[in-house]
Amino acid sequence: MNRVVDPIIILVQPQLGENIGAAARAMLNCGLTRLRIVNPRDGWPNSKAVRSSSGAESIIYNAGIYKTLLEALSDLNFTVACTSRKRNLRKKQFNIDDALNQYFDNSLKIGQWGIIFGSESSGLKNEDLDYSDVLLSIPSNESFGSFNLSHAVLIICFHWMRKIKELSSIVKDNVIDKDYLLASKSDLSGFFLQLENELEKGGFLYPPEKAPKMIKNLRAIFLRSKLSKKEVKTLRGVINALKRSGMSL
Amino acid sequence: MNRVVDPIIILVQPQLGENIGAAARAMLNCGLTRLRIVNPRDGWPNSKAVRSSSGAESIIYNAGIYKTLLEALSDLNFTVACTSRKRNLRKKQFNIDDALNQYFDNSLKIGQWGIIFGSESSGLKNEDLDYSDVLLSIPSNESFGSFNLSHAVLIICFHWMRKIKELSSIVKDNVIDKDYLLASKSDLSGFFLQLENELEKGGFLYPPEKAPKMIKNLRAIFLRSKLSKKEVKTLRGVINALKRSGMSL
Repeated sequence: MNRVVDPIIILVQPQLGENIGAAARAMLNCGLTRLRIVNPRDGWPNSKAVRSSSGAESIIYNAGIYKTLLEALSDLNFTVACTSRKRNLRKKQFNIDDALNQYFDNSLKIGQWGIIFGSESSGLKNEDLDYSDVLLSIPSNESFGSFNLSHAVLIICFHWMRKIKELSSIVKDNVIDKDYLLASKSDLSGFFLQLENELEKGGFLYPPEKAPKMIKNLRAIFLRSKLSKKEVKTLRGVINALKRSGMSL
Repeated sequence: MNRVVDPIIILVQPQLGENIGAAARAMLNCGLTRLRIVNPRDGWPNSKAVRSSSGAESIIYNAGIYKTLLEALSDLNFTVACTSRKRNLRKKQFNIDDALNQYFDNSLKIGQWGIIFGSESSGLKNEDLDYSDVLLSIPSNESFGSFNLSHAVLIICFHWMRKIKELSSIVKDNVIDKDYLLASKSDLSGFFLQLENELEKGGFLYPPEKAPKMIKNLRAIFLRSKLSKKEVKTLRGVINALKRSGMSL
């Protein structure tokens, strides 16, 4: 692989076909082609999406359709969630300038990555962010900050295109570094479920009403540490070792 | 006036109300509020425009509606025309980076200005550019470069918003300088018509089939010279003086 990896655009529960099509058109305007859609409200295929893509139909026809966000993310190594709301989560929250200037430069060797957008009415829910590595917000008029879905997609794709152009004059041979490869989201998911299952058994997730928040905080810790595939394997071994250790008591 | 002057957005013969509304929303997302529309295809008012503005209705209700582009421009001192096509005109053609980095910095004291967008189907015609000072193109995927109308408006407005934020930390008191004030488009129009009328009488615009091209070239020369109000007055005096000079022969 001798070029920077383009992101996959992921729309979570989009409502209007027109917006899906307009987002596809915006993607292609900026040279991006891979679209995934989680649980589109009006079903799939969607003729309005085809029509409003205005020539970018191939993106619509080739879009991956998923039932859950986790399925749509499972083979990705890194994800960026777009959200305008301030979140009380221990995740890095960038605006687009910071992201492009300080972050993306360093994140070009992380493997396959995606950018996640929420629905028109409500954006992304907190639980949609469970597997996101960083949050990204788009600067706007403070008193009127809600962008149309395809507009949000356009702004991010447009900035990506320009950044890539800038970088391509610097980075000649951008090869993915295996040692640097982050764990895939399905690797992480397997690890999380094992950990949480064992914690449940061990009575750690108590009282039950606090369990979701405790799980969220734990996951955030491991996401921040940017685990590699090998490290996840190691941690799963750690869980087993700790269990064995307990058995001998 | 103690701040940079925000541009007026001008849509020439827009077709779909949805796009007009989405453009208004994009404007307000970026803190811009003044919209002018030339000859909207589906008439005015347009309920689809109101609906798709999603909270930016005030821009739609306050939009100025004009029959011709010249009327919409007549009180402006400077105009930027957005076009993706390469034009064989002697006008400066910037892409958005050049414009923001090299040009807008110097053009903040020029008075009232506007940014012009063409229709969805065909963009701006060559004659729409007669009163434009510079052309602006939006970078894109070379093999799929046609942006949705509201997307084009968004990109320009978004970049303007960010530029202004950057500048506002530098420019504290940006007062319009009267000595630097460009002639209004109606000043220019009066001058052009006087000049062309006299040239016609003088047999300069010959043969007739070449007249439109000759006029276009002449206008482009004067536009490039960025005439002030006072200079236009001087040039109109020059025309009269030359005529008088001829009479005495």
